[in-house]
Amino acid sequence: MEKGYKHKIELKVRFNEVDMLGVCNNAVYITYFEEARLEYTKEMGLIPEKGIFEDGNLYFMVHNEVNYRAHAHYGDELEIYSKISYIKNSSFGFDHLVVNKQSKEKIADGKGVIVYVDPVTRKSTRLPESFCEAVKHFEPSVQILRNEREG
Amino acid sequence: MEKGYKHKIELKVRFNEVDMLGVCNNAVYITYFEEARLEYTKEMGLIPEKGIFEDGNLYFMVHNEVNYRAHAHYGDELEIYSKISYIKNSSFGFDHLVVNKQSKEKIADGKGVIVYVDPVTRKSTRLPESFCEAVKHFEPSVQILRNEREG
Amino acid sequence: MEKGYKHKIELKVRFNEVDMLGVCNNAVYITYFEEARLEYTKEMGLIPEKGIFEDGNLYFMVHNEVNYRAHAHYGDELEIYSKISYIKNSSFGFDHLVVNKQSKEKIADGKGVIVYVDPVTRKSTRLPESFCEAVKHFEPSVQILRNEREG
Amino acid sequence: MEKGYKHKIELKVRFNEVDMLGVCNNAVYITYFEEARLEYTKEMGLIPEKGIFEDGNLYFMVHNEVNYRAHAHYGDELEIYSKISYIKNSSFGFDHLVVNKQSKEKIADGKGVIVYVDPVTRKSTRLPESFCEAVKHFEPSVQILRNEREG
Repeated sequence: MEKGYKHKIELKVRFNEVDMLGVCNNAVYITYFEEARLEYTKEMGLIPEKGIFEDGNLYFMVHNEVNYRAHAHYGDELEIYSKISYIKNSSFGFDHLVVNKQSKEKIADGKGVIVYVDPVTRKSTRLPESFCEAVKHFEPSVQILRNEREG
Repeated sequence: MEKGYKHKIELKVRFNEVDMLGVCNNAVYITYFEEARLEYTKEMGLIPEKGIFEDGNLYFMVHNEVNYRAHAHYGDELEIYSKISYIKNSSFGFDHLVVNKQSKEKIADGKGVIVYVDPVTRKSTRLPESFCEAVKHFEPSVQILRNEREG
Repeated sequence: MEKGYKHKIELKVRFNEVDMLGVCNNAVYITYFEEARLEYTKEMGLIPEKGIFEDGNLYFMVHNEVNYRAHAHYGDELEIYSKISYIKNSSFGFDHLVVNKQSKEKIADGKGVIVYVDPVTRKSTRLPESFCEAVKHFEPSVQILRNEREG
Repeated sequence: MEKGYKHKIELKVRFNEVDMLGVCNNAVYITYFEEARLEYTKEMGLIPEKGIFEDGNLYFMVHNEVNYRAHAHYGDELEIYSKISYIKNSSFGFDHLVVNKQSKEKIADGKGVIVYVDPVTRKSTRLPESFCEAVKHFEPSVQILRNEREG
């Protein structure tokens, strides 16, 4: 495992993900990050058993970024490392790292920010303590950057 | 317009739709057909004003096929021609033709079959007469291959 | 293994492959077939060691078709079965079958036709005997529908 | 036009770009940015007439970021605004803004950084003066953050 990470998924670069320059297209990494985040959330036990979103909880992406370090090519096996690095009042952040499984070359890294949304008002709302506890249990290094709940 | 067609949409081949052979990837044409069918349905007046699927009607693709005649490249402007060619009891068929707008070269043709589904039972069910009338009005050449409704 | 097939790949339906109806979008199956064909070709030993296309051989898709039998949903594990079913003078055909790994429900089946192309003239040309031999070795049930080479 | 921008392209959100939450998937905006940058470069006169990449010049994405402000839905017409905001020695930066054409609501903004690469060594190399001149002509507000070329 890459230092600082305890969760990874593995993906193989598909033929139609490679563009005419012969390299994995830059937009595809955002899809890889999305798959990684969902698997991470599933392993944390936070995807409802009845099916994703069936508990009514909504999480909206508000920010994504990628730094491209090297190219990936058709058929390359990639390791996508992910962790929740911090939790704020109503949002939390993911760090991602993409490594070539054979050469261990760093291909890309990135960050995502997700906001917890009240399904009725569709406005950002305070993440429940149960979410923080689940993350702290799964990812002990997470930084908690939250105010005490008032009252 | 291409002979036999009265509906077209225009699309430009995107950079990420082109694969490492420098040509528009074969799966992309199915997406082009889907966009064309939805625009066609919209122009026919059959997409609910409140939003797609808001009337509860469900239509499932059951068959798609494409014949690739020539290549399309990044930035090529394509004309996607579509028509409903026949209506059966609970299904109907689309014909599609993809033409290079500048050279008029035929790039691909294809067919799609769609089944009308009862939203409660999720089984195929007889298309309403109002659907047939709307298609006949929009596409007079459509073949009606339906039984008389019994009783 | 499904009857009649000896090659499969496994894929999991990605979040961004599912459309607003909650089911795997119809174009995605063409991408699954493409991945399956390339893995099949790799296992047959026909992808050059230096990298795909590095031997100058060109193969163009000329036909694709899919029959959709049931829906696949986010996270579903799918088995994609493939075989070369016939070889003609300058073309050959793939059969595909998509099965839900858990329920064994048939999700889709399909066919693809590929033409062997002379890299200089970019016209279809007779498949070399070495290709036929490699396929017969890997897929003994393949139908050979070729003329004797004249002269 | 949005303040500060003189280039836009228009795109309509496709059915298969919308995910099961009913909104345009977060990875799609990176593709929209890519299409916008290529059209921008074409209008600046910097895409070779013989075809993209035919002059041997290589440009690699090294960074992409998106802030998601509001959702886009199937069929929404979007305006993608772009500008080159700065040029450094061997890299330059794009700013992007995505606006709903009807409501004028801001949907997303983003940034991209591109490095000019020597096609032989595949290492970053100083952008030619002709590139800077072309950008300054097309985008007078661009910031030039380059050293004088030594000796």
